[in-house]
Amino acid sequence: MKFSDRITAMECSPIRKLIPYANKAKEKGKKVYHLNIGQPDIATPRQFFDAVKNFNCEILTYSPSNGIPELIDAVIPYYRNYGMEFSKDDILVTNGGSEALLFTLMSLFDKGDDIVIPEPFYANYKSMFQVLEINVVPISTKVEEGFHLPSKAEIEKIITPKTKAILISNPGNPTGTAYTREEINTLASVAKEKGIFIISDEVYREFVYDNLDYASFGTIKDIEDNVIIIDSISKRYSACGARVGLIVSRNKEFMTNAFKLCEVRLSVAELEQIGAAALYKTPQNYLKEVNEEYKKRRDIVFEALSSMEGVVCRKPEGAFYYMVKLPVDNAEKFVIWLLEEFDVDGETLMMAPADGFYETEGRGIDEVRIAYILNESDLLKSMNILKEGLKKYPGRTTK
Amino acid sequence: MKFSDRITAMECSPIRKLIPYANKAKEKGKKVYHLNIGQPDIATPRQFFDAVKNFNCEILTYSPSNGIPELIDAVIPYYRNYGMEFSKDDILVTNGGSEALLFTLMSLFDKGDDIVIPEPFYANYKSMFQVLEINVVPISTKVEEGFHLPSKAEIEKIITPKTKAILISNPGNPTGTAYTREEINTLASVAKEKGIFIISDEVYREFVYDNLDYASFGTIKDIEDNVIIIDSISKRYSACGARVGLIVSRNKEFMTNAFKLCEVRLSVAELEQIGAAALYKTPQNYLKEVNEEYKKRRDIVFEALSSMEGVVCRKPEGAFYYMVKLPVDNAEKFVIWLLEEFDVDGETLMMAPADGFYETEGRGIDEVRIAYILNESDLLKSMNILKEGLKKYPGRTTK
Repeated sequence: MKFSDRITAMECSPIRKLIPYANKAKEKGKKVYHLNIGQPDIATPRQFFDAVKNFNCEILTYSPSNGIPELIDAVIPYYRNYGMEFSKDDILVTNGGSEALLFTLMSLFDKGDDIVIPEPFYANYKSMFQVLEINVVPISTKVEEGFHLPSKAEIEKIITPKTKAILISNPGNPTGTAYTREEINTLASVAKEKGIFIISDEVYREFVYDNLDYASFGTIKDIEDNVIIIDSISKRYSACGARVGLIVSRNKEFMTNAFKLCEVRLSVAELEQIGAAALYKTPQNYLKEVNEEYKKRRDIVFEALSSMEGVVCRKPEGAFYYMVKLPVDNAEKFVIWLLEEFDVDGETLMMAPADGFYETEGRGIDEVRIAYILNESDLLKSMNILKEGLKKYPGRTTK
Repeated sequence: MKFSDRITAMECSPIRKLIPYANKAKEKGKKVYHLNIGQPDIATPRQFFDAVKNFNCEILTYSPSNGIPELIDAVIPYYRNYGMEFSKDDILVTNGGSEALLFTLMSLFDKGDDIVIPEPFYANYKSMFQVLEINVVPISTKVEEGFHLPSKAEIEKIITPKTKAILISNPGNPTGTAYTREEINTLASVAKEKGIFIISDEVYREFVYDNLDYASFGTIKDIEDNVIIIDSISKRYSACGARVGLIVSRNKEFMTNAFKLCEVRLSVAELEQIGAAALYKTPQNYLKEVNEEYKKRRDIVFEALSSMEGVVCRKPEGAFYYMVKLPVDNAEKFVIWLLEEFDVDGETLMMAPADGFYETEGRGIDEVRIAYILNESDLLKSMNILKEGLKKYPGRTTK
């Protein structure tokens, strides 16, 4: 019996594929700091749990395929607060940001169509491209340039008649890069001129530091019809396990098409939507405090990384990731070595090897993604383990 | 800007597309009995809500992509009780039965591959076939034969080298047909001989009446590697809104592939899984009582339909649907007419026109699906409305 080509082409997640090594390390009694996955350690606001506990009904029925009215009503003022005016029809609730993106891609792309995307990009995107047989056309960006975009001319060069959309993550997973207003305007004018969509994954919208002038694609004029925003409560409210995401777009025809997919899976879990509606009413202060906490963590990690010889990184403007070039022969081997053979006082570290975040063969081989999702003390210990590990690793490439 | 061919090909759900007519009828003050959708009116067992309310944690984190251990552990004895022995690795928790089927189809089918399926079939299947560009090869079944299967030779004739699987719903949505053990054995031997998969949607497993000898594909020997079971708590425990389903298979390679898709969407909502785990521990008695309630409803509807001149149906063995041939020119027109122009004492009825459940053009044009998911009194009133409506409908085809 044969499986589909599309599933056979799908690779395992680089974020999770080394988990068996971490499990073995734990079995041997080692403590493992998990900086490989974007799972925050911040408490989910109590409002979520209170709302769920107060939910009272006899029958847990199918809810509307586009999302429950309470949640949609709560989301509208959230966007308004950022200068974006959306109506109810512009919003579809999904099973997390991942379903939001999957449905968006299915609505736009046939097999063999081109997607343009800055590289490196979130590894789960790649899995979706593989299973939908979408052709990836990367915009090359580099750690030395803080993963910022090349010129408009460079981007225009790679757009073909088969290009359906440019997908960006802003601020970026895995890079932490927040694009400047100029970069956003450049992408907007390319999309407008070429008649293609911008899919803007903005799940880290609140994770921008140093009072940077962050521009959501929802605020850019004259390209309303081209813009599709992917959103989620996972990181914003530290509620990854709720699986509540959003598709937001003013393009009516797109929304009609994406809604068909929502209908096929009938509805999103209702209790989680009720909790999410409460989260969107959480005082803005909560988001500020979380932002300050992550800024502190980013700075701790930056100071630590800067002190390690041979390590290349720039201080990222947002999200909670670093893409770091290490002085090692192979980042995956190094991560496995850390788990299998190394420890500092019985403790070690797990990171995500970065080659899975690149489309271009051979890129990212000496890079890792570090998620700074632990508290100050654990981060300091983790960075010390990395520093000591780099000194001892047999495959170190510089002295 | 162009949308994908696959999304453009997708039709709207026949179960939901007439909802705007129902809404207009309600705005005019009419009461509408909804027999168009399989949303039971039975209370969700309290165990679900109690478990959710007792859930205590600080952070709602990603849970394992294959499902939480508590739920998987609760599901294993449930199957054992029906004579099916599955291990943890044979089970993947999904966002409802719909995601279970979508992931299964993606794992097996490339564009243009053949799926063999008895017609009529659940309309949402069709949407999935359309968006995945799977070629549908229907096994024709008829209301006059209670939608039972043709001979083995007839089925074998339509299997091609491009056939990846036979998909059945047993007991069936929309037909209510429960296949005999002989039919199941026939399908099993076809699958074994031709080296193809059986995808068996058994979400209505407990909805089989008259002590019929129901055979789950999980109990059939020697074809373990060919069988994939689609399951869900939606109907079993009247928890449609929870969106908890299952993929169950002993084929390790299939499970490895389907798991990749689970990883891409990270996890299923955790609270709902905790509730579902509690549901699987609900005393077996609950399922018996629900079964008796539906059997009563089935019999009420059968008696009513049998008394209507020109109506053709057989008493179904299971699920909670009737596929009924009506003496009308066009079932969709008739359903719209009932909503727009007809009432009995201010009340009317909504059913699902059946052409959307057929692949073959022109079939089902004078058929409807009736879900008997209301209480005795409402069902009696609904049947009376149908009877009176059929008498008055201008497009009636027989006198």
